[in-house]
Amino acid sequence: MTQVRIEQPVLNENQRIATRLREAFTESGTLCLNLISSPGSGKTSLLEKTLELLPEDVRAAVLTGDLQTDNDARRLARYGYPVRQITTVGACHLDAKMVEKHLEGWPLGEIDLLLIENVGNLVCPTSYDLGEETKIVVLSVTEGEDKPLKYPGIFRKAELMILNKIDLLPYVPFRIELVRENARRIHPEIEIIETSCTTGGGLSEWMTWLRQRTKHKHSKAALAGVETYF
Amino acid sequence: MTQVRIEQPVLNENQRIATRLREAFTESGTLCLNLISSPGSGKTSLLEKTLELLPEDVRAAVLTGDLQTDNDARRLARYGYPVRQITTVGACHLDAKMVEKHLEGWPLGEIDLLLIENVGNLVCPTSYDLGEETKIVVLSVTEGEDKPLKYPGIFRKAELMILNKIDLLPYVPFRIELVRENARRIHPEIEIIETSCTTGGGLSEWMTWLRQRTKHKHSKAALAGVETYF
Repeated sequence: MTQVRIEQPVLNENQRIATRLREAFTESGTLCLNLISSPGSGKTSLLEKTLELLPEDVRAAVLTGDLQTDNDARRLARYGYPVRQITTVGACHLDAKMVEKHLEGWPLGEIDLLLIENVGNLVCPTSYDLGEETKIVVLSVTEGEDKPLKYPGIFRKAELMILNKIDLLPYVPFRIELVRENARRIHPEIEIIETSCTTGGGLSEWMTWLRQRTKHKHSKAALAGVETYF
Repeated sequence: MTQVRIEQPVLNENQRIATRLREAFTESGTLCLNLISSPGSGKTSLLEKTLELLPEDVRAAVLTGDLQTDNDARRLARYGYPVRQITTVGACHLDAKMVEKHLEGWPLGEIDLLLIENVGNLVCPTSYDLGEETKIVVLSVTEGEDKPLKYPGIFRKAELMILNKIDLLPYVPFRIELVRENARRIHPEIEIIETSCTTGGGLSEWMTWLRQRTKHKHSKAALAGVETYF
């Protein structure tokens, strides 16, 4: 059977750049999160809510990836944080080189939280390290409970699963216990937060998670003798 | 910017096999359809309904692709038609070689309609010809109206867009006119059928489309002197 062919040199080159990015994020105390999901699971809406609810003392920035259009960057730019679109022109994932290029001119020391919205795809982005601290998988309740079993790669690598669009639960045949069970079968330690960007349900839990992680990152950077911003 | 790297020899090899498959389908009068969508848009449910509603004189078979699990094949096998799972073990798309391999032992002359359910992914499957007569893109109304603009490749190549889960329209901010407009901006001649596998809405229109295409394929094969089955 034919396997996907990602050439090893391509992955090696990606890993070299990702490692460089990770070192830079550690030094600057920037928490970098890589959000991965299917198209239409609500990543951009979740980011909109996140920017809206973010405490003023957290200096955030967003890189948002798409094959075409800068719709997402325009949506996100309204919240007053720096946002850049990465248009991949057909590529099915972001890679570390694209991230590094699009960070040019942004002083990392002034960014506490870097949110990367990957291209909508549950498969390919999984293989490309972007130097992030954490991968987050976003799954909407309209997509079915079987997705962790069918796309195990991303559920294995993600520390957190955000189960989005829970306001639609009354209208879809989706058993929330089953998706939790399936996710934990693939990744027993995965954290799970349930959200709805329509009703606001679960957003406070997500913001608390984010706040704790951002602070923790800063503390670590501070311990390493780097200037902190809280 | 790094582009996706699908090596030309890989695509050339795929094209050679796809051409061979297409010739075989033409000779046997088999209508082969390649269904492409995001994960969770409802392809498998649509295929379940299709097999349930299919007239008895249409001899169908299904190949269903997934990275992992044979859940879909098990769901589809209940309808009494031959079904095979293609487990890609990580690959983000089906290719012609996988299809050819999984058709082994199935006499094409006894298959009027071959339904191929691709891996859930709006990007990568677009580049791989499987020898199909028609690509069909399935989009659910929970995914947002912007998807044709963001993933133009598949909307350009698909002859038909099935807009699925229309029963959820009252609960999501989705403007059906806008998605039609976006799809036609990318592909002016694209056909559009709206369906719901929950209420059954639109399924008769889909079955009519399928019936007409299957008959047409047979007529063409008959004209070429090939035995027909209607």
